[in-house]
Amino acid sequence: MGGLTVMRALKARLPGENLLYLGDTARLPYGTKSADTVTRYAVQAAKALIARDIKMLVVACNTASSVALPILETAFAPLPVIGVIGPGASAAVAATDDGPIAVIATEGTVKGGAYVRAIQALSPRMPVVQQAAPLLVPLAEEGLISGEIARLAVERYLTPLLATVPRPKVLVLGCTHFPALKQTIAAVAGSDVTLVDSAETTAKAVEQALKSAGLLNVGSGGVAQFLATDAPDRFANVGETFLGSPIDPGSVEVVDL
Amino acid sequence: MGGLTVMRALKARLPGENLLYLGDTARLPYGTKSADTVTRYAVQAAKALIARDIKMLVVACNTASSVALPILETAFAPLPVIGVIGPGASAAVAATDDGPIAVIATEGTVKGGAYVRAIQALSPRMPVVQQAAPLLVPLAEEGLISGEIARLAVERYLTPLLATVPRPKVLVLGCTHFPALKQTIAAVAGSDVTLVDSAETTAKAVEQALKSAGLLNVGSGGVAQFLATDAPDRFANVGETFLGSPIDPGSVEVVDL
Repeated sequence: MGGLTVMRALKARLPGENLLYLGDTARLPYGTKSADTVTRYAVQAAKALIARDIKMLVVACNTASSVALPILETAFAPLPVIGVIGPGASAAVAATDDGPIAVIATEGTVKGGAYVRAIQALSPRMPVVQQAAPLLVPLAEEGLISGEIARLAVERYLTPLLATVPRPKVLVLGCTHFPALKQTIAAVAGSDVTLVDSAETTAKAVEQALKSAGLLNVGSGGVAQFLATDAPDRFANVGETFLGSPIDPGSVEVVDL
Repeated sequence: MGGLTVMRALKARLPGENLLYLGDTARLPYGTKSADTVTRYAVQAAKALIARDIKMLVVACNTASSVALPILETAFAPLPVIGVIGPGASAAVAATDDGPIAVIATEGTVKGGAYVRAIQALSPRMPVVQQAAPLLVPLAEEGLISGEIARLAVERYLTPLLATVPRPKVLVLGCTHFPALKQTIAAVAGSDVTLVDSAETTAKAVEQALKSAGLLNVGSGGVAQFLATDAPDRFANVGETFLGSPIDPGSVEVVDL
């Protein structure tokens, strides 16, 4: 579901592109699953999209990006494949000279260490601290994005993380669900911490890659289509929190991976 | 994962039985999925267990019991199949003459209305009120079973439900995850509300059914075996909260459904 935050950024930045979104709602969440299982599911999802003749694949999930990106790139070459970790890491490094950079993400993303590697590939001495924030995923999906429960859950994860000395200057929202909780996260983190939301930076990377490849459709007229692996009603209902605009359940096509 | 609360009750009551547990950890949670998807997954899980020569199938999940029980019974007859809803409904009806009976459960269980039907099949005029409590599932899985976040989440669901007039006398924990939060739920509900945990009542129903069929192994010496569809480490780690005793990750066999 969180990938819809990336979809929103892509729609806003690339109004001329036809966007085809697949939400693996039957098997979500990916964040608590093993790397092997997430990779297997990501390959199945990619195949279903490629069968519909896409020109680029965006992996709009931090967990899948962190474990499956190289395999997807190799398996489906020469199709361009863009994940959310690289753009998020670039934006984080651009936002601070000396850090530390803090990352909140799913259990799977934290365990895999992909943000640490991506950030330190760009800035080898940059200190990076990370914290799994698993409860924020269901909170976002239940629409509990503000209020006392959301604030306490965010504090639970951020308080130890931001107690790092020196205090982190940048906080990467390393899960596509977390932008839904951005206001609560910003309030808890305080104004001295810059939040990096990889949705916007991923949309920029996609635009750049399409431009370089001569594949960019300018103009407006792009169409958005939604596929899901489970009930369209729930997808449309929960999805609105993340997409920021309504989804017509009648327009959601159910696919079986 | 929640099914392990039923496993615990079965182990305690039937020490002579060999118990084979399958946790579909790759595709959990079931509580937010559609009836069709849960039914498909439940049939796959049942087939995997039946291939290992079981004498009875216990559906240790309220969501799967509420949507898939008749299909499982028909598909695998004459294998005895026991779900958790019937025993929970019996215990609730036994605990009050006039109700109301309140039920907290997953979104899928509430939507399907199986508890309302099962309770009113036993006591046609019994008033039943229900409330989906989706956040309690990840709270239990993250081990956040007490403390302020757990209390606020429980209050969020129970306060409107227990404001029913007349006040409910019985509260059914209609999801196998919820017994992990029993103390917090009891504290919020107050001592005038009787909690019904279907794990214990299901274990009694299983014992009765085995006895009737002449299949009961008395004595001790029963062995417990665990199968999971994803990472054994996480299964063992999270499972301890629900089983109430440690699980050796090395003993968990990974199966693919």
